[in-house]
Amino acid sequence: MRNIKLTIAYDGTNYKGWQLQKNGRTLQGELEKAIERAFGKKCRLYGSGRTDSGVHAKGQIAHFKTAGKLPVKKIPIVLTSLLPQDIQVVRAEEVPFDFHSQFDAKTKHYEYRIFCRKTRDPFIERYAYRWAYKLNLSLMKKEIAALIGEHDFKSFQAADKSARGSVRKIYSARVTKRKQFIIIDIVGNGFLYNMVRNITGTLIEIGRGYFPPGSMKKILKMKDRTTAGPTVPAKGLFLVEVKY
Amino acid sequence: MRNIKLTIAYDGTNYKGWQLQKNGRTLQGELEKAIERAFGKKCRLYGSGRTDSGVHAKGQIAHFKTAGKLPVKKIPIVLTSLLPQDIQVVRAEEVPFDFHSQFDAKTKHYEYRIFCRKTRDPFIERYAYRWAYKLNLSLMKKEIAALIGEHDFKSFQAADKSARGSVRKIYSARVTKRKQFIIIDIVGNGFLYNMVRNITGTLIEIGRGYFPPGSMKKILKMKDRTTAGPTVPAKGLFLVEVKY
Repeated sequence: MRNIKLTIAYDGTNYKGWQLQKNGRTLQGELEKAIERAFGKKCRLYGSGRTDSGVHAKGQIAHFKTAGKLPVKKIPIVLTSLLPQDIQVVRAEEVPFDFHSQFDAKTKHYEYRIFCRKTRDPFIERYAYRWAYKLNLSLMKKEIAALIGEHDFKSFQAADKSARGSVRKIYSARVTKRKQFIIIDIVGNGFLYNMVRNITGTLIEIGRGYFPPGSMKKILKMKDRTTAGPTVPAKGLFLVEVKY
Repeated sequence: MRNIKLTIAYDGTNYKGWQLQKNGRTLQGELEKAIERAFGKKCRLYGSGRTDSGVHAKGQIAHFKTAGKLPVKKIPIVLTSLLPQDIQVVRAEEVPFDFHSQFDAKTKHYEYRIFCRKTRDPFIERYAYRWAYKLNLSLMKKEIAALIGEHDFKSFQAADKSARGSVRKIYSARVTKRKQFIIIDIVGNGFLYNMVRNITGTLIEIGRGYFPPGSMKKILKMKDRTTAGPTVPAKGLFLVEVKY
């Protein structure tokens, strides 16, 4: 038996999220089917975490155990060839038998893309949230810094409660402008359900002047979801990297 | 009554091409529905030409006649808001009553994108044809020049015959490399069915060394479809611009 770690990229638009479901195509489901075809045996694939319906990934991590003989170097090309065109197995590595993609994850990096334009672009629409109005970029840059460090992120957590509580450590949080996009990059030791999307919604409220300067810090302290901004759409969110 | 000219961009992946069909979503169908909702009355939309299932457009042109009062400046935003997210009405102009988007078209510019990489990229897969092997770029650049001028393009025409015959004039034809892409740009006074896709397939056969140098000129002279390369997939093709 080998333990295989996969790095996976996907366009999440046409999936009901990562996790296996009774109804609807999921990323885990498609990947498990491809693994079964490649290795001749059903096996469970464990992801570093779920991504929601419509969320994309450049570097999702997952692992599975197999007695199959396929050389590790060939796994990415074989699995990708068995997968729909919106999923790619970027890398495969053999890892120690006790490696676990979820429990061993040290940091995750998420990116949220805001497309700053009045009009739709059909080639970008799937991969960013379009915002047609003015945003105060330098204020957003300042405000996001309040997230860095260990905090209780209850204000940015969706109704679902996490078994691990709502304290997380954020290592870096940045707002940058690239061409017509405002990109929000956040690296942390873990994220609550909808956390990045709620933070982004709050940053937009600040950037457009609806929430006053200093709001990010205040909202964090309130530990109350109703004080934060709205949840922005899934389509702008990318899981960029998971580190171990 | 006004005659309205529209410039339209679309991601063609999820459509059965431009032209109205009994079964299946088409671009003309979606646009006519949006026009009916915006102007309160069914009307026929005439495109500059069909694009096939899966072909994209940055600047498709179409026109329709309406007695509706919606100011021309508001048409793009109103129609776009009534359209699926993969279609955008980029511009609207009032044009002389006898303007016809198909019959008055002087030149069309098509672009074909080849993505030169061994491995799939799920974010590019919809918008380019991936080619994993070596291509001789400088040879492709030379060979494509044979197309410039007025020629009988029968060798590059799909089985369907055009009522206008198979002579067309090509004003410019270029192969360029941009990052990991090889881009083929062709501007002409008209194109036969599958012509750009068959030219690209032929260029790839030349670039990979399967057809010898000089083939483009020879194939053109043969006026025989079986001498040319294969038809490359629709997903790499973009209608860039139509000029009048």
